[in-house]
Amino acid sequence: MGDKHFVCIIGSGNWATTIARNVGNNAARHQMLEPLVNMYVYEEYIDGRKLTDIINTTHINVKYMPDYVLPPNIIAVDDVVEAARDADILIFAIPPTFVSSCCRTLLGKVKPTAHAVSLIKGFERGDDGHIILISGIIMRQLKIPCSVLVGCNLAHEISNDNYCEGTIGCRDQKFFRVLPDIFKSDTFRVVVTDDADCVEICAALRNIIAFGAGCADGMELNENTKAGLIRRGFLEIIQFVDVFYPGSRMATFFEACGLSDLVTSCYANRNRKLAEAFVKTGQPLSELEHILIPGHEPLGPVTAEMVNIMLSNKGLEEKFPLFTTIYKICVGDAPLTRLIETLRFAREDIYHPTHIFQL
Amino acid sequence: MGDKHFVCIIGSGNWATTIARNVGNNAARHQMLEPLVNMYVYEEYIDGRKLTDIINTTHINVKYMPDYVLPPNIIAVDDVVEAARDADILIFAIPPTFVSSCCRTLLGKVKPTAHAVSLIKGFERGDDGHIILISGIIMRQLKIPCSVLVGCNLAHEISNDNYCEGTIGCRDQKFFRVLPDIFKSDTFRVVVTDDADCVEICAALRNIIAFGAGCADGMELNENTKAGLIRRGFLEIIQFVDVFYPGSRMATFFEACGLSDLVTSCYANRNRKLAEAFVKTGQPLSELEHILIPGHEPLGPVTAEMVNIMLSNKGLEEKFPLFTTIYKICVGDAPLTRLIETLRFAREDIYHPTHIFQL
Repeated sequence: MGDKHFVCIIGSGNWATTIARNVGNNAARHQMLEPLVNMYVYEEYIDGRKLTDIINTTHINVKYMPDYVLPPNIIAVDDVVEAARDADILIFAIPPTFVSSCCRTLLGKVKPTAHAVSLIKGFERGDDGHIILISGIIMRQLKIPCSVLVGCNLAHEISNDNYCEGTIGCRDQKFFRVLPDIFKSDTFRVVVTDDADCVEICAALRNIIAFGAGCADGMELNENTKAGLIRRGFLEIIQFVDVFYPGSRMATFFEACGLSDLVTSCYANRNRKLAEAFVKTGQPLSELEHILIPGHEPLGPVTAEMVNIMLSNKGLEEKFPLFTTIYKICVGDAPLTRLIETLRFAREDIYHPTHIFQL
Repeated sequence: MGDKHFVCIIGSGNWATTIARNVGNNAARHQMLEPLVNMYVYEEYIDGRKLTDIINTTHINVKYMPDYVLPPNIIAVDDVVEAARDADILIFAIPPTFVSSCCRTLLGKVKPTAHAVSLIKGFERGDDGHIILISGIIMRQLKIPCSVLVGCNLAHEISNDNYCEGTIGCRDQKFFRVLPDIFKSDTFRVVVTDDADCVEICAALRNIIAFGAGCADGMELNENTKAGLIRRGFLEIIQFVDVFYPGSRMATFFEACGLSDLVTSCYANRNRKLAEAFVKTGQPLSELEHILIPGHEPLGPVTAEMVNIMLSNKGLEEKFPLFTTIYKICVGDAPLTRLIETLRFAREDIYHPTHIFQL
């Protein structure tokens, strides 16, 4: 294989399949990449045929994206160890709940010089209730560095060749140049930064604000209210990162992982949709979750809860009034009208993250 | 009148009438304000009756807001000199084209200690093609300080008691506390800052981005593209202010005049609507302007042009690729597809406004 990087995608759901087209196309022509890309597929039988066989002959993932043709250099493999063994770059695109078991299976079986990239939306809950970043779990369990790709990139918009943008938070300088080249396309802008914690936590925090925006939609509030939620939400995201991930840089919030992902989420995200239904139907979240997001934890309420634990442990709830209000609305401790009151009375000058934010 | 401030509103259109309710309600109960508020009304006859008489008896501006009741302490006056003579605070809410003639009429007739507040959306074109802020014209012509109120506050949303938010850029410390009290309401959050140039220029620059967002809507592009335009647009607004209004502060962009006004404008603003029609109908802007915005100059294209002159004079067009592209689309020098190309290739690191933006 010489000096070329061998890439492996772990996962075969909607998001994994979407990005596999970009990865396959880029690997086929990039001088630093091995053209063949393994894709670990959880084996299933579809009309009596193995899904891996179907993908390897038709180049279509009939289970998840039946209308989407993959490049022929994407090779479906039903054994994760076999798929990953020779990989220099391991792309994780599986549900967050499968990360730990997958890493246990792979421990000691991957190249010690391999580099992981997490495309996983979500995070884990620590024993103390705090947010644990998925990349942290991968790094701890697999004992290799793990970068992240997040951003303003709804899977169906990427697969439709609509313009999208993503940010890579890179944790190994050696992979700084090659990582964007693996994912980008003519319609997918990918920018790399070394501010990896900030990139990853932004993607979690915006779910809280998207849930608040959905509440505003459910209440049929006006454009200015939604814009006010985005403004205040962006500020609290920056403040939160400054407190809990010190050393992060202001510029990172102006990448796709920051402002544009937040805006998209507040207009077209499933947390937003969940919150809208929550307000309009009056049903408890626990019931709506199953209706709206089968098989997925609703990230807005869960993130709001963990963030609230982190804030209250430091006595900072009052300095993050929007995060706090959205958490209280989720658990029924505050009426919906508190959203507007929070925007009215939130003071910008109550907390100054001076090292990140020159006020 | 003792120490109380006498307030006068100059203007009686939609925006002036909308804000007159807030001003009247606040003046009626504020210990630092004289309860009676003069409102200069351009006299007209409606069904044989003077508009000022109608307003002073029915408290309804039948010409501009027939369904909206003003507080009884708003006194319509048909002579601008008489209306303004005793005023300590002069609120300007007239079309930008009338500012110079109004100031000439008032010069030497207002109290030398009076303070102006401009609510005027728009700006003037200097002899060199550069943007001239309206507050600057008022200050130069009337020889009194002039603050500004701008923000995320569509007139009809304020009049409907929807949540809105505004920012006052205050140019006299003596009026720092009283100005927000004049405009705010239970649903209108008003925050004051002394970063007045930044507040006012933000309101102009966002029209360029709103026009770009409207082009994206006209092309029926996706959510991620619009979010990408907002992200890149916000960055170029900050960069522009940093170059042309040095000394501005980062925190100001996180007020209503900054991020939330930008977001609202990109989803619900008439520049956005104009651009959408421009793309969908293929008609020249000069024709659509009259259809869509009778009596108003379309601020997006005009701002884009003046900003382009300012940038090209400093050789900075390439460092502001989105502003430049939107200008070129307006004048037919670039195809619409250039919008996406600009988002794809714009580099965040090409220009670092280091004193405002710690990168």
